[in-house]
Amino acid sequence: MRRNKKERQKLLQDTIVETPFITDEELAEKFSVSIQTIRLDRLELSIPELRERIKHVAERKLDDEVKSLHIEEVIGEIIDLQLDQSAISILEINKEHVFSRNQIARGHHIFAQANSLAVAVIDDELALTAKANIRFTRQVKESERVIAKAKVVSGDSEKGRTIVEVSSYVGNELVFSGQFEMYRSNTTQR
Amino acid sequence: MRRNKKERQKLLQDTIVETPFITDEELAEKFSVSIQTIRLDRLELSIPELRERIKHVAERKLDDEVKSLHIEEVIGEIIDLQLDQSAISILEINKEHVFSRNQIARGHHIFAQANSLAVAVIDDELALTAKANIRFTRQVKESERVIAKAKVVSGDSEKGRTIVEVSSYVGNELVFSGQFEMYRSNTTQR
Repeated sequence: MRRNKKERQKLLQDTIVETPFITDEELAEKFSVSIQTIRLDRLELSIPELRERIKHVAERKLDDEVKSLHIEEVIGEIIDLQLDQSAISILEINKEHVFSRNQIARGHHIFAQANSLAVAVIDDELALTAKANIRFTRQVKESERVIAKAKVVSGDSEKGRTIVEVSSYVGNELVFSGQFEMYRSNTTQR
Repeated sequence: MRRNKKERQKLLQDTIVETPFITDEELAEKFSVSIQTIRLDRLELSIPELRERIKHVAERKLDDEVKSLHIEEVIGEIIDLQLDQSAISILEINKEHVFSRNQIARGHHIFAQANSLAVAVIDDELALTAKANIRFTRQVKESERVIAKAKVVSGDSEKGRTIVEVSSYVGNELVFSGQFEMYRSNTTQR
């Protein structure tokens, strides 16, 4: 549906606030206009380009610090972290992540992003995956950007286990979901 | 339990036939003798060392050929393959596979070995993972060797799905088990 410029710019602004990691291509498709139009809109509205927006978020000091592993061991880039509550990371799918034959992302990379995020969100020096129940809901292609969101949903302090649910999206499409049962050493917090 | 040399050599031979990828260290522990004793036993029995045994198996032409992906895309080395039936691969865990903090293998590498084997066993040009239910049953440490065994257990030709069960071992200890529901394009065979 075409809209007038004012309407479109209002919606564009709202959309970027809600989903800050949306690309110009996705915005152009969403509003049925050219990528050039989106770029001009952003210019007029002083909204930085995607790369700058991601950098900005990444440079913002995370509220918490990863404890259970070295931050460079996380697959993807962590952009938000609240220990024992939630975490978000971004993984850009490139050539090394896909099957050479069909450019579909290999499951274990999508899994690795989600699993390492489930480890990172645990507020403990030791966190290991005990079990996982996962589902690949849509193929991910080369050059797509996967945003994984982890949520700590419950803990069983007697067994020393914590359940983390991870949902991964491309745009607003769910591509992966998983429930991870994490083993941890310190179980006093939940 | 100590045994006399003749008994031990007989058992050693049987053990290597059953579990050809057992190390001299593991054999020494199993028979409560020194590694030197095991080496002398192997020499007397003309059993090649582990590295040679693995090479020998790897050089033997596989009964079938991987169809669903390029063989170099398999994580680990495939040493046996019967399409739509079973497959075996070996992955040596080294520095790049472990958490720097505790030298425990990261779950996604163990998962990647199992998942790529589940893809490789499918007799189809297109095989993708739809779901998986996995369990990490014992920590794997740096320099251990993981042997993954995949078995095709059933297929649902209407839905185009095939179930593959993968069990991964270090020595004879189960370290990982998973049930993978695989999507495939061609469903005529099962």
